[in-house]
Amino acid sequence: MHRLALALAAASLPTFAFAQAAGPQTPATLEASADAALTDDVLAWDFVEGITTEVGPRQAGTEAEKRGRDWAVAWLNANGFANVADEPFEMDTWVRGTETAEIVSPYPQPFHVAALGTSASTGNRGITAEVVEFDSVAALQAAPEGSLKGKIAYISNNMTPTQDGSQYGFAGPARWVGAGIAASKGAVASVIKSVGTDYHRNPHVGGTSFPEGVKPIPAGALSNPDAANLERMFDRAGDTPITMKLVLTPRDLGTTTSGNVVGEIVGRDPSLPPVLVACHIDSWDLGTGAIDDGAGCGIVAAAAKHAAAAGQPLRTIRVLMAGAEETGLWGSEAYSKAHIDEPIAVGLESDFGADRIWKFESNFAKSNPDLHKRIAAAVARFGVSTGTGVATGGADINIVRDQNGAIIDLSQDGTRYFDLHHTPDDTLDKIDPEQLRQNVAVWTQVVGLLANEPGPIKGQ
Amino acid sequence: MHRLALALAAASLPTFAFAQAAGPQTPATLEASADAALTDDVLAWDFVEGITTEVGPRQAGTEAEKRGRDWAVAWLNANGFANVADEPFEMDTWVRGTETAEIVSPYPQPFHVAALGTSASTGNRGITAEVVEFDSVAALQAAPEGSLKGKIAYISNNMTPTQDGSQYGFAGPARWVGAGIAASKGAVASVIKSVGTDYHRNPHVGGTSFPEGVKPIPAGALSNPDAANLERMFDRAGDTPITMKLVLTPRDLGTTTSGNVVGEIVGRDPSLPPVLVACHIDSWDLGTGAIDDGAGCGIVAAAAKHAAAAGQPLRTIRVLMAGAEETGLWGSEAYSKAHIDEPIAVGLESDFGADRIWKFESNFAKSNPDLHKRIAAAVARFGVSTGTGVATGGADINIVRDQNGAIIDLSQDGTRYFDLHHTPDDTLDKIDPEQLRQNVAVWTQVVGLLANEPGPIKGQ
Repeated sequence: MHRLALALAAASLPTFAFAQAAGPQTPATLEASADAALTDDVLAWDFVEGITTEVGPRQAGTEAEKRGRDWAVAWLNANGFANVADEPFEMDTWVRGTETAEIVSPYPQPFHVAALGTSASTGNRGITAEVVEFDSVAALQAAPEGSLKGKIAYISNNMTPTQDGSQYGFAGPARWVGAGIAASKGAVASVIKSVGTDYHRNPHVGGTSFPEGVKPIPAGALSNPDAANLERMFDRAGDTPITMKLVLTPRDLGTTTSGNVVGEIVGRDPSLPPVLVACHIDSWDLGTGAIDDGAGCGIVAAAAKHAAAAGQPLRTIRVLMAGAEETGLWGSEAYSKAHIDEPIAVGLESDFGADRIWKFESNFAKSNPDLHKRIAAAVARFGVSTGTGVATGGADINIVRDQNGAIIDLSQDGTRYFDLHHTPDDTLDKIDPEQLRQNVAVWTQVVGLLANEPGPIKGQ
Repeated sequence: MHRLALALAAASLPTFAFAQAAGPQTPATLEASADAALTDDVLAWDFVEGITTEVGPRQAGTEAEKRGRDWAVAWLNANGFANVADEPFEMDTWVRGTETAEIVSPYPQPFHVAALGTSASTGNRGITAEVVEFDSVAALQAAPEGSLKGKIAYISNNMTPTQDGSQYGFAGPARWVGAGIAASKGAVASVIKSVGTDYHRNPHVGGTSFPEGVKPIPAGALSNPDAANLERMFDRAGDTPITMKLVLTPRDLGTTTSGNVVGEIVGRDPSLPPVLVACHIDSWDLGTGAIDDGAGCGIVAAAAKHAAAAGQPLRTIRVLMAGAEETGLWGSEAYSKAHIDEPIAVGLESDFGADRIWKFESNFAKSNPDLHKRIAAAVARFGVSTGTGVATGGADINIVRDQNGAIIDLSQDGTRYFDLHHTPDDTLDKIDPEQLRQNVAVWTQVVGLLANEPGPIKGQ
């Protein structure tokens, strides 16, 4: 705690430096504050640098996440947020163990594998079985019942980089439901090609799930170079079976405690519903949670500070750094349950890396076209266009959806997000400080505008 | 062996397809053969795809290297090479064990580490000690004797990408001699920033060595993102010591057998000294030996075949796929020792990835300017310039240096080579087939020209 306190004292310097850069005392207007953030913000970087360096991985429900929450609480306090708290909730926690994969025959060599969340264990001796390839979830679904008895199912569907991240919906099901389908057809284990767009020996982890009544099986993801190698083996092996030995020894810890970290910039009229800006404080365990989602927490917290730099806002800005997002939105659900009776004016989330914001959408373009247009006009100078879709919000603002409230989506460029997502490579060096500052500037502009809006944001 | 034979039967198809592409039967000239290779070669790809898929990692002196040599022997035979053999030699063999690193305090989190070749073991319980940072080998050398007693030395020097790979000479000493210097000053272990230019969680391994009389200590390389994180920790920790727990359990296997794989295109006059084209068949253990050096073996073997496609060459072309290069040029030394009395006309090696050749140099520009100029003119159409330096040859042509013979260097673009060098990421997907074909075309041209040269190649 001594070192932490020291580092946090240093962390307050950037705010000071920013305030200086913006003018002798404070920026004259919200616009000036947002413009200053574009070139001078160091607060978002300080958050993500600090938490990845001083804490690192923060898996949901573990002591590492607790250290992350403690760190965030201290950082928010050191940076002048009010009403900072860590609101506890309970959850089911799973942690990985040993994980190895190797081809036993006909082409023996080791592969890189990682277990998917809720995977069963192979036991220490592992499972050695023939691998059967399916090129899609649909192909796996079409396999006859019982046809995978004693086999390891492999799903090879590819993911292509997309700016809007929409290929996650295309490629993701292999991870989300593949193991469950394989189990239901008698497979002893399953492995998938990583749901990711890079070619490094770093598997992409993430949760999987098993249908009611289906006993979980060991489920892993191969790195994409290993998956490509396995597919070449199928091409070369002809009718000769390919046998893999898989060792995955994760275990369930049962119920543990996580928490949602909150902090506020208190508005001039605290009776008005607040603006909720969200991110998640937990991360998958293999990386350090830089782009997912240390950056998001840095962005929303920095924007809240900068939005208030030109003067106390009308409404309270509430920062929610949700716990346990990665393993099933436990924090988002707990927050909604605890606070459902406290109306939120509008919710926004940052959880898609740290690259440039390119699109703005809301769910009130029709119900409050004036505000929608004012926001669109205000962010245009940062190169942000207005989309034609309806914002649905991120994972951690369940409360806003549950309240049928106003939502804004600020879309980040996700072209390289799935190179890193849920891998050991989710580290600070992947963050481009210039693009991070553009995020903070856009967020500052939008949050400040919302926090000073007197009328109902979603309209009547 | 059944699968291998089948795959090798398939592997002979590319040659056939190439011969077809080049004309009704055979290319009319060496130039036509080289030009055809530029667009149509699939033989080099077939070699590197085959060995990385069917064998994978091939660490020197292990059974995996033996499988690699067997595979290469079968491939050379299947592709019509003569006098194919695996010439055995003995060597000292070291293999890695468990390897983990974690910061214990003040910022606990796991790091990615891998042991350097000849590293001592920490024992299963590991070593927990304070880390002391040095920004260069020179700084480490300047540390007072005994000042590192009980400490882990960390060397943080950076490597910058260079087209000619010359930064390896600048950054490499941290790996080559850092551990030995640290040991001589009392350190209990050493870790270095990876000698590499990428930012993935894949440590770059490679050999290290300890001076006579200095007892080896455990020596590891951190991945570059982890090294950057450690340096941020030093920045944040002030005077608080940074403590690392390091577990590295490699072991020496003692003397084992490796071998040099050779094969020939027999020339019309076998009494003339042959053209020696070399690569190495072993690889470091973490990757699959694609760019280092499966590609090199594919290039030289394909070039030998294509050079002979326009007609049997005057001189024999001898392919040397050396064993055990990575752990100390054992194969190169053994080959020279065994064959020192058999004059080599000229030696060339491919061992720097698979990217484009951009420069030609020889060591006979002055002694045989006519031939030097003819080669320079012949490769210009492939975008290859002629350098002003004197070729010194690659690691596996010791015999040529020992004979004071003619040497040619065909420099490949190494800009991205050290992103991958000695990492788990040395996999087939990193090879660009178009650049690989340019390599084969240039090599075909040069090897064919040399193999049809009647006079002494180094000149009088």
